[in-house]
Amino acid sequence: SRSINLAVIPGDGIGREVVAQGLKVLNSVLPQDVKLETKEYDLGARRWHRTGETLPDAEMAALRQHNAILLGAIGDPSVPSGVLERGLLLKLRFAFDHYINLRPSKLFPNTSTPLAGRPEIDFVVVREGTEGPYTGNGGSLRTGTPAEVATEVSLNTAYGVERVVRDAFERAAARPRKKLTLVHKNNVLVYAGHLWKNTFDRVAAEYPSVTTDYLHVDAATIFFVTQPERFDVIVTDNLFGDILTDLAAAVSGGIGLAASGNINPTGEFPSMFEPVHGSAPDIAGQGKADPTATVLSVALLLRHLGHESEAARIEAAVSADLAERTASAVRTTDEIGDALAARVAG
Amino acid sequence: SRSINLAVIPGDGIGREVVAQGLKVLNSVLPQDVKLETKEYDLGARRWHRTGETLPDAEMAALRQHNAILLGAIGDPSVPSGVLERGLLLKLRFAFDHYINLRPSKLFPNTSTPLAGRPEIDFVVVREGTEGPYTGNGGSLRTGTPAEVATEVSLNTAYGVERVVRDAFERAAARPRKKLTLVHKNNVLVYAGHLWKNTFDRVAAEYPSVTTDYLHVDAATIFFVTQPERFDVIVTDNLFGDILTDLAAAVSGGIGLAASGNINPTGEFPSMFEPVHGSAPDIAGQGKADPTATVLSVALLLRHLGHESEAARIEAAVSADLAERTASAVRTTDEIGDALAARVAG
Ligand SMILES: CC(C)[C@H](C(=O)O)[C@@H](O)C(=O)O
Ligand SMILES: CC(C)[C@H](C(=O)O)[C@@H](O)C(=O)O
Repeated sequence: SRSINLAVIPGDGIGREVVAQGLKVLNSVLPQDVKLETKEYDLGARRWHRTGETLPDAEMAALRQHNAILLGAIGDPSVPSGVLERGLLLKLRFAFDHYINLRPSKLFPNTSTPLAGRPEIDFVVVREGTEGPYTGNGGSLRTGTPAEVATEVSLNTAYGVERVVRDAFERAAARPRKKLTLVHKNNVLVYAGHLWKNTFDRVAAEYPSVTTDYLHVDAATIFFVTQPERFDVIVTDNLFGDILTDLAAAVSGGIGLAASGNINPTGEFPSMFEPVHGSAPDIAGQGKADPTATVLSVALLLRHLGHESEAARIEAAVSADLAERTASAVRTTDEIGDALAARVAG
Repeated sequence: SRSINLAVIPGDGIGREVVAQGLKVLNSVLPQDVKLETKEYDLGARRWHRTGETLPDAEMAALRQHNAILLGAIGDPSVPSGVLERGLLLKLRFAFDHYINLRPSKLFPNTSTPLAGRPEIDFVVVREGTEGPYTGNGGSLRTGTPAEVATEVSLNTAYGVERVVRDAFERAAARPRKKLTLVHKNNVLVYAGHLWKNTFDRVAAEYPSVTTDYLHVDAATIFFVTQPERFDVIVTDNLFGDILTDLAAAVSGGIGLAASGNINPTGEFPSMFEPVHGSAPDIAGQGKADPTATVLSVALLLRHLGHESEAARIEAAVSADLAERTASAVRTTDEIGDALAARVAG
């Protein structure tokens, strides 16, 4: 499409700083004839403190009109745990049916990894985004007493599992190595595990070109550190995906480089792109945050909207920028943004 | 106690081989005046194929009479996923109220780690063993149809959480660094998370000497690879503990060294000790399995039964044995067992 109507949610902590750089790079990479409109939404900790609101209906309706959402980070220690996560971030993911939570991991040259021997890392996790233990279907009884019982229910539907599994097979089939690994814990979570594994096996029959594999989530964490090169595409549930993608980020350049897309592939709702790192309140406002994860999230956003060549240009720019980084020359958030914007300028 | 009546469940795959070495070392380390009786139980994949039984009541009752259980490994690809895990291994952990699943991680000198720079690793995970998503409280509706719904319920009780949290505080208070980290995901799993965090904070007030910390499970995986030295004792739920302890094993010498104890601290039921690695059917019967994790599990068993000096002797023997290992001189399962038995001989 020749115009992008983008919603921007800077959010909390370093969110504002990194989003500014993402927009800078976006403006720089877009060809003249693509009209970019942005509208900022004041959501997050400050808004909650001021008004008690996390995400009012009116804003929800307004957000829905956009082609996509760019989000910085949500969360602040001054807000009780769960309020903004459930009331804002997860609310968006669920209401806009972001059933694909796409999280690529790539160990770029010259970036840090805690792993000895710098293995080849280039995989993508397709994390389910709208089901599992994230549905908020829990409760507690006799809360705060010695007789308290608290539950969390993981909800899994054939509808929800099949669509994410199909999406992952499509992605695997389009990649050179064509390998898809299902990660679950079907030897313990037998009901959900059965649904995931059966669906996976059934859809696999339609993709004979894709090599498939299954790993329990505990075993998967082992391979993430001992043999990450074995992974190409991974499909997994919401919670396992949350855990695995932080580990993936840690081994492939750090959380400062991890991008993500919360995607609604049908296009019925706007998709939302965000760095995996959180609001990092300890370094907020100091110009220390690395905006690269946000810039890479902008690349995912552009790819989602059909601007493949611009997405690729951003990724190439990041790769080149990282290759030239030196430990001694530490740059500010703004300087990194400037450098990337300059590289992608058309 | 001056006599040990031990139940032995070799189980599947490499289970039999490694358990034999564990018993060899146990026999060697025990002083003359401690009488060791062992009784082997034929449980696991072969038994299931032969009789369809996983763990009959009569065997359950017999197992209960022992002072402790040594288990090799359970699981075989020929058995549907979940049958032996739920019907045997988890049945034992739940029926014998093994609410402390103790999993120490230590990076011994001269052992392999995928982490660059060989950080100091010496922590212990206290994994809850009888609640959480492991209770089997799930189900499925319209199974096998496009309208299937499958659930898994995580059950958490004040009773269950408090007892494991207290145990972890006791362990932390007894260690030099006195640090306890709670790992959960209380920003998403708010009901269970609330119970865990509140209990943790309340019990913490009784242990002013213990430094406390809280991490979301996703963030914890990052620190496991970037800063494992920050951990001393970790307390966490059944599923998070499962995932984290495999990752812990991977970074601290590999799954071949990871020991565990399924402990019922009240002594009402026998505790059970097992290597964290599984049955590894691909190398079973070849004398290739490293029995060290089983031998270290025997040390945990001895410590639990009050034989502290023998436990320490085994750990010192393992440490010395590992220090002398060379990549070129690969030993068989039996040879490693012999070497350790010789070292601990009193
Ligand atoms: C902040 C939190 C709700 C979120 C999640 O658990 O999904 C975060 O960890 C992530 O991975 O995007
Ligand atoms: C085999 C399986 C049921 C078990 C678990 O999930 O607890 C194993 O992974 C472990 O960690 O002991």
